[in-house]
Amino acid sequence: MWSNRFIQLSKYAVVSTMAIGVGYRIGQSNGHESADPWSVLKDLKAKPGLPIFGSVSAATAISRDLAPVQTPAEVAIPQKDVGIPSEPLPGQSRIMEIMRFGFPGLDNIRSHRDYVVSYDRRSRLAHWVFEHLTRESVKRNDQVDRQKSEFKEDLSIHPFFRSSNQDYKYSGFDRGHLAAAGNHRQNQDVCNETFLLSNMAPQVGVGFNRDKWEHLERYVRNLTKLYRNVYVCTGPLYLPKPGPDGKNYVRYQVIGANNVAVPTHFFKVIVGEMENRDLEMEAYVLPNEAIPDDVPLASFQVPPDSVERAAGLLFFDRIARNQLKKINGKKIGWL
Amino acid sequence: MWSNRFIQLSKYAVVSTMAIGVGYRIGQSNGHESADPWSVLKDLKAKPGLPIFGSVSAATAISRDLAPVQTPAEVAIPQKDVGIPSEPLPGQSRIMEIMRFGFPGLDNIRSHRDYVVSYDRRSRLAHWVFEHLTRESVKRNDQVDRQKSEFKEDLSIHPFFRSSNQDYKYSGFDRGHLAAAGNHRQNQDVCNETFLLSNMAPQVGVGFNRDKWEHLERYVRNLTKLYRNVYVCTGPLYLPKPGPDGKNYVRYQVIGANNVAVPTHFFKVIVGEMENRDLEMEAYVLPNEAIPDDVPLASFQVPPDSVERAAGLLFFDRIARNQLKKINGKKIGWL
Repeated sequence: MWSNRFIQLSKYAVVSTMAIGVGYRIGQSNGHESADPWSVLKDLKAKPGLPIFGSVSAATAISRDLAPVQTPAEVAIPQKDVGIPSEPLPGQSRIMEIMRFGFPGLDNIRSHRDYVVSYDRRSRLAHWVFEHLTRESVKRNDQVDRQKSEFKEDLSIHPFFRSSNQDYKYSGFDRGHLAAAGNHRQNQDVCNETFLLSNMAPQVGVGFNRDKWEHLERYVRNLTKLYRNVYVCTGPLYLPKPGPDGKNYVRYQVIGANNVAVPTHFFKVIVGEMENRDLEMEAYVLPNEAIPDDVPLASFQVPPDSVERAAGLLFFDRIARNQLKKINGKKIGWL
Repeated sequence: MWSNRFIQLSKYAVVSTMAIGVGYRIGQSNGHESADPWSVLKDLKAKPGLPIFGSVSAATAISRDLAPVQTPAEVAIPQKDVGIPSEPLPGQSRIMEIMRFGFPGLDNIRSHRDYVVSYDRRSRLAHWVFEHLTRESVKRNDQVDRQKSEFKEDLSIHPFFRSSNQDYKYSGFDRGHLAAAGNHRQNQDVCNETFLLSNMAPQVGVGFNRDKWEHLERYVRNLTKLYRNVYVCTGPLYLPKPGPDGKNYVRYQVIGANNVAVPTHFFKVIVGEMENRDLEMEAYVLPNEAIPDDVPLASFQVPPDSVERAAGLLFFDRIARNQLKKINGKKIGWL
């Protein structure tokens, strides 16, 4: 029994290490994979030019992007002196609250009442969705019934790049929420908005969307008991793995007439703010497949920068990483 | 001899039809592939809501994207009454000249002296590059020597998402130009800038980068003899094809420590403006593989909207498609 569980744990440890291992390599000067993924962060520290103190927020990049770029401005500004963005004042926009710590990327942003999405027109899926949760916002509300919500095409997306319910039909995949419906219970409208297909991704149903992924969603929701504010960014990954020829390949299914991508993995990167303003980060990568119930969520924790490299995104980049008190439960005072 | 050539032609016709066939389906109401790809454009005409008259330029979308979107604004504004953007006045920015007919997308834009790039941080490659060519700009210049240009990392890209020369080393792939070096001969600096790795993609060398792709580049350059202005957008594609299980899969290699994507195909979408201001469009999709010399370029022509769907981009969207006099050499008066 125990040994069986051990085997499963090992299997999943291998899956996530392999899956995001590709992200580690840049930070390593010696050219071999390290057994200790945390050594990457240590290595990074020693590399001049690498944005260990955070980078300029993607949200600030537009004006610079449109001007000729001659200098590596994106890595030149250490954020340790910038300070942590404060909570928006009451009455300021909900979007400012949600995006307080920076946009992971800026491609095709759509803001909804209670979450923000960046849409990838090529995959017909979000790049990422962003949510802000509090004890108050996730409170059970019997006035809201997710059974009344309908999966709907996102008409704000150009029809060439929009997924439809038809794409999912007979595909064998669930329409899995990125921003979880259960996080948006203030009223029925807010719940309904999470049912836009731009907030969905094809997910394995049994063992994933209806099980381990749902556990992760519930876990994140429960973090509001521990933290004053919980910020969570969720999205798909398309991770490479070695082919029979030893070369690395990205391979993923596409479904329906619109060729909606079926991600190989999904991530959640979470920041919690304590009452005393301490910030803590957790990052998870789960494979889009049936995962045995007894595999603990903690076995899917990964260094946040490995998700950044794989997704092409920068998470919470208005917080310098050394301003965080913990990453994945470990104190990072050694940085 | 002739029959041999015929077989090769057929092979490539099949390759391009299969490759971009995925793009056709949305426009079809009857659910089966049409033998005549042009019927797609005809079908589109009959579909209300589809942007056959063009769509709002991606370049105009930022402010709207950041506000809550309730209506399908992206498809609601027919462009036939908007008119064609005129040539920028002398002294206006080169970028305005290059991007006169709209941005295909807005992700991570970098503007250089003589071309514009949109960078895909996940693939470590451009989404697209845009060039504007004239007889004058492509004129032979003995002062410029591409042998003096060096392939250089693009330091404006965050180090997590940047490709390096090391990634290409021993990969077996060429560092293939997207904006062709031969299009930028005004001075050595302008030529050098095309050697940034953000303008490169892993291309098969013999039979592709050094042959058929180079023929296409030369063909585009020669269009400046026919047109007053030539605008060309170039980029990678990652096209799905059926797997052994009958499902569709996207599969592509990644190279180097940075996992630089190896595109399955490349596109060029071209607009030429005649002296009388008539506009004509051509679109090409070539597989990233050795292509026999005697396969004519014309066999790689595809309907432009099929490239748009596959790439997640909208090309020349400040020109309504029915303002074009020809697409791929065919008059489109029947639209």
